[in-house]
Amino acid sequence: MTYCVGILLKEGMVLASDSRTNAGVDQVGIYPKMHLFAWEGERHFAVLAAGNLATTQAVVAQLASDGENEEIETNLRTVASLTDAADYLGEISRAVQKRYAGDGDKSVFQATFMLAGQIQGEPMGMHLIYPEGNHIEPSPYQPYLQIGETKYGKPILDRIVTSNMSLENAARTALVSHDSTMRSNLSVGPPIDLLIYRRNQIDGGKHIRMQQNTPYLASLRKQWQKGMERIFHRLPLFDWEKNANG
Amino acid sequence: MTYCVGILLKEGMVLASDSRTNAGVDQVGIYPKMHLFAWEGERHFAVLAAGNLATTQAVVAQLASDGENEEIETNLRTVASLTDAADYLGEISRAVQKRYAGDGDKSVFQATFMLAGQIQGEPMGMHLIYPEGNHIEPSPYQPYLQIGETKYGKPILDRIVTSNMSLENAARTALVSHDSTMRSNLSVGPPIDLLIYRRNQIDGGKHIRMQQNTPYLASLRKQWQKGMERIFHRLPLFDWEKNANG
Repeated sequence: MTYCVGILLKEGMVLASDSRTNAGVDQVGIYPKMHLFAWEGERHFAVLAAGNLATTQAVVAQLASDGENEEIETNLRTVASLTDAADYLGEISRAVQKRYAGDGDKSVFQATFMLAGQIQGEPMGMHLIYPEGNHIEPSPYQPYLQIGETKYGKPILDRIVTSNMSLENAARTALVSHDSTMRSNLSVGPPIDLLIYRRNQIDGGKHIRMQQNTPYLASLRKQWQKGMERIFHRLPLFDWEKNANG
Repeated sequence: MTYCVGILLKEGMVLASDSRTNAGVDQVGIYPKMHLFAWEGERHFAVLAAGNLATTQAVVAQLASDGENEEIETNLRTVASLTDAADYLGEISRAVQKRYAGDGDKSVFQATFMLAGQIQGEPMGMHLIYPEGNHIEPSPYQPYLQIGETKYGKPILDRIVTSNMSLENAARTALVSHDSTMRSNLSVGPPIDLLIYRRNQIDGGKHIRMQQNTPYLASLRKQWQKGMERIFHRLPLFDWEKNANG
């Protein structure tokens, strides 16, 4: 399994992904799920992937080779908009799934993607691309997208995220969301890739890879856990507890 | 959907369940998922249910009618242990599912139960009963069980719950776990049933039903949300934020 989250803000966007892959508990691997494509000053994209590893690797490999191939008309380097990029990625994904599934059970070969980035002169954006190739963007009322094992890390997003928050606060929220998920589900694991894109600054973004014991992440995890315990012990008493103390 | 959680402690146990039922978004109902059976001084049980509403209602109705029927040898009033009670409930559940599913698709009619309680002279206990009738108990290392929509509310349990905590602290944890779930998933909703059994005190337990605006729950929800925001804003800064401030 996998967990990836993207938060779209007025200041830019933040993406975070884990690195655990498993095909049964006896086949666990480390594969980062975040793939970066950048032509500085022109355009930059991040592709985050969840689902069948062979499918996601084949799709990412084709995105990379198409981008270097001047004979291919449509690729990440030539698409006019982020929506076109999402359509293009969706088509590759469908073709790869079809190649291996044939007329058999498609569900095994499925993959879901997030495509985020900006093309010079175009608005910044983020798309969640379903296995069928169709895609959605976040809304101003819920300015984030998730793929993979999404439920454990959703409550903290629903409690904290607004599109007005700073890039750094969004990055901390994404890390806490990942920490909550990793504590509760073994199929999501470190290292965590964190990417920060500042709006209209097409420089490939700030990319940081963190292990569990990377000092910043270790300190954030510890302070969050301690903070939770502290607020927990300050929650209101039930009536009968007050009477017992009174 | 549904969310139910049970926490087994040295002092006793705490159970909490929501009341939302839905069969599609245009058919949403309020049905408490917690059903209590008590013969004071002798034995008391709580049955929490998730899954097909017709199945869970049929099972609970039969538990109730069997308990009043002196001609029926095995019922909640006569079983010798909690394990026997779980076996008995599992058999009823399987029979009900089979009655309606026939040879067709069984999955629609499935239900999962939690059975918790104590029989005088026997240890207190808690079982999660699968649709197939088999069942599990919590472990000392993870002294809780969940059924239904379990993922949103699991991180807080994994962060806070230990079998040494007080009944009241466990009750607060269960309420926070429900609050996190209800904020992130519309298929789980109030009122919340909260039940506290003190070990070896076979009095039917302390049962409280709370609406979202019940003062205690409203205050707990607000304090938790405020506390989360407070600790969030105290998380460590990234290096580049410190430099920007320095």
